[in-house]
Amino acid sequence: MLDLNDLITVLSMLPGIGKKSASRVTYYLLKNKEKAVKIAEVIQDTISKIKSCSICGNFTISDPCELCSSKNRDDSIICIIEDPRDLQAIEETGYYKGRYHILMGVLNPLEGIGPEKLRINELIKRIEESNFNEILIATNPTTEGEATFLYLLNLLKDYNIKVSRLATGIPMGGSLEYSDKLTLSKAIQTKIYL
Amino acid sequence: MLDLNDLITVLSMLPGIGKKSASRVTYYLLKNKEKAVKIAEVIQDTISKIKSCSICGNFTISDPCELCSSKNRDDSIICIIEDPRDLQAIEETGYYKGRYHILMGVLNPLEGIGPEKLRINELIKRIEESNFNEILIATNPTTEGEATFLYLLNLLKDYNIKVSRLATGIPMGGSLEYSDKLTLSKAIQTKIYL
Repeated sequence: MLDLNDLITVLSMLPGIGKKSASRVTYYLLKNKEKAVKIAEVIQDTISKIKSCSICGNFTISDPCELCSSKNRDDSIICIIEDPRDLQAIEETGYYKGRYHILMGVLNPLEGIGPEKLRINELIKRIEESNFNEILIATNPTTEGEATFLYLLNLLKDYNIKVSRLATGIPMGGSLEYSDKLTLSKAIQTKIYL
Repeated sequence: MLDLNDLITVLSMLPGIGKKSASRVTYYLLKNKEKAVKIAEVIQDTISKIKSCSICGNFTISDPCELCSSKNRDDSIICIIEDPRDLQAIEETGYYKGRYHILMGVLNPLEGIGPEKLRINELIKRIEESNFNEILIATNPTTEGEATFLYLLNLLKDYNIKVSRLATGIPMGGSLEYSDKLTLSKAIQTKIYL
């Protein structure tokens, strides 16, 4: 009937947007043509300006990125994360002042993502050429994140550098009663002596 | 830090997309540049091709739209709906063969949407110039939809044309126990004699 399927199809490829939301967004765009044109322009503009930092892998306008070229960061510690959004989350806490290395994904054999598809070679090269005293592995506590953590742990054991990871446990404001068994077990196993 | 705020801001203007989803979509687009470029192109392409039908108001490539220019539709009945998506929903049932008129919104005084902002003048003109025997008002059974229904009912009473509306009641597959009070009351008030 109407040739809106192209737009609905491309929109429903976006994460968190299904067929229904895509159709809703499509009709919204048709009703608000100026906004639609603006969105298309901003997408094109942003895509053309943003590149990857050759050091940490984060999205950036200038290469190396602001964080990698900053003189105010601690050069003795490097934090390995999955994704640029994790960097943002950690930066927002204000509790980490070291360098970052972004893997741009996690190991996921089912989706064909092996070590060669992550920025692991770049990581090894960086570790060999720098003087880090500590490597903080901050992958997510998911199945894939844990697999990636173990892979890295094994890979890094030859370098004689202290390796650490984020604590897992009951989230602040959470309750023991409603914690899942795995989280509670982890919290008991990694209990803190006072 | 990074100039992604422009993109996050325009994306979060879309319906059903908050700040978090917009940021997720933004990072997805940066990771999948070809898809991002494709989406921008399809938006621009669709927006430039689609216009409003001068008769029913629906989005269309040709004016009048396929439905309005079809010879196979029943010219004796017109169905008034809020939105193009409602047309799609009714067409998918296959139980309506008449003409449509799309208001492109509902009365909503709080958002400053009065009758003059809807396609009501066009509706009156159409009714006066055509020979409809029945007007089916199919606004949604929401507060705004009901207000619009009552407004139209009052407006149309001078035309000596039969006016109908969609039945409200317990949805198929639903249960009396879990129906809200208002729906159940409506179902009782509009009970069907067999």
